[in-house]
Amino acid sequence: MQIIAETTELGVTERRFDLKVGDQVVPGLHWLPAAASAPHPTVLIGHGGTQHKRVPNVLGLARKLVGELGYGVVALDAPRHGDRMTGEERRRVEAFRAARQERPGNPLPPMPPGRREFMAGLAAQAVAEWRALLDALAGQPQWAAGPFGYWAVSMGTAFGIPLLAAEPRMSAAVLGLNALQEGSEQQRADAAAITIPLLFLFQWDDELITREAGLALWDTFGSAEKTMHVNPGPHVGIPVFERDAAVAFYRRHLS
Amino acid sequence: MQIIAETTELGVTERRFDLKVGDQVVPGLHWLPAAASAPHPTVLIGHGGTQHKRVPNVLGLARKLVGELGYGVVALDAPRHGDRMTGEERRRVEAFRAARQERPGNPLPPMPPGRREFMAGLAAQAVAEWRALLDALAGQPQWAAGPFGYWAVSMGTAFGIPLLAAEPRMSAAVLGLNALQEGSEQQRADAAAITIPLLFLFQWDDELITREAGLALWDTFGSAEKTMHVNPGPHVGIPVFERDAAVAFYRRHLS
Repeated sequence: MQIIAETTELGVTERRFDLKVGDQVVPGLHWLPAAASAPHPTVLIGHGGTQHKRVPNVLGLARKLVGELGYGVVALDAPRHGDRMTGEERRRVEAFRAARQERPGNPLPPMPPGRREFMAGLAAQAVAEWRALLDALAGQPQWAAGPFGYWAVSMGTAFGIPLLAAEPRMSAAVLGLNALQEGSEQQRADAAAITIPLLFLFQWDDELITREAGLALWDTFGSAEKTMHVNPGPHVGIPVFERDAAVAFYRRHLS
Repeated sequence: MQIIAETTELGVTERRFDLKVGDQVVPGLHWLPAAASAPHPTVLIGHGGTQHKRVPNVLGLARKLVGELGYGVVALDAPRHGDRMTGEERRRVEAFRAARQERPGNPLPPMPPGRREFMAGLAAQAVAEWRALLDALAGQPQWAAGPFGYWAVSMGTAFGIPLLAAEPRMSAAVLGLNALQEGSEQQRADAAAITIPLLFLFQWDDELITREAGLALWDTFGSAEKTMHVNPGPHVGIPVFERDAAVAFYRRHLS
């Protein structure tokens, strides 16, 4: 974990780091309470598809977790996202975003052939990177002795399900905006293998996910303590007050 | 509103009062922060069927709202409940509770003929009593100037839906453990007429309510801000941490 830059502002220290995982260099951000002198819990935040480690909802939640709970927070650029995009990928994402903004609330076009396999490959890579991050943090017990939480909706939940199924170092997770995929026995098995406390955020008018498939995913998780928070509105529209719910959830399970 | 007794303990003043509404005497409890000298919001708590104004979940929530938010809280015995039961009714309820405890999680037997009309009569009476309480509290602006919140699940939600549809003095409500009734146009119209912020608590394995009917009720509320919290478990099994969620919800809307 190579520190690229470190700044402290308003009581929060931000470290820009690079993490080497196989042939990949994964850029990340680590926020810490500037006054931290004792071990504290750490939450890993995964961003959504087409987003990156420094989008406003990641920053807003990170600030709350550091400021209100005194936790550390880490965000990574997911595979093929953020600083890891080629110019061609960036142009494609910008075109996709522009099209969505013109027709907000419309369902996505059907997945092109091979898309599911492509996303499964990204997920496997993301899982390896989060696990490598946990290994790297284990070398910094003064900041990141655990326990560890996870927060990630939409694509971050698609990556989080195999991560949480495989990784015993995670103690509580906020997931959401995702669905049980018809015919994916692997996803069903991974979701059922998760037994840590979960908070699942779901949007009732999500244009990308049917109500039935979202409820079915929540139903499949193996956790004895799992709560679903349902709000009206589209995919990108989780109310800001759900950040407070996440703070209360992590306080209950990690503090 | 006639004060029958007043005690102060651990910073909370409890007033036992009787409220005269038509030919009925309605026994109630009013909890106030003992140090209260300025107006503060007040939450009305309705208990569930077969319960009364002093059951543990009412007391537990009331203590939190007084202690953490500095609010006032009022609980009433619902019509035909608590101190308003005849000996015969009390024996019937005890037999019912014993039968439920022997076979927990089993669905209720089908409603006897006339039961729906009987419950609608109780609801009309409960609505009149809550509204009379608000009138009485208006005479005590030093304690109860508003704003007002409502908290009541199960039978309390059956009473709360017509109350909130009719009563403009309520600003936010926690409801739950109830369902859209097939064929009840009145319930549907009342639910749709409610536009204040709502938190709706729902149990995924509720033996008295199908998932579909519970989700359909939430879907029917007219409120732009409405959140449903779904947890696994039976009808009587809302996790205690949902009290903290209620505190956060009222703080956001009443404080």
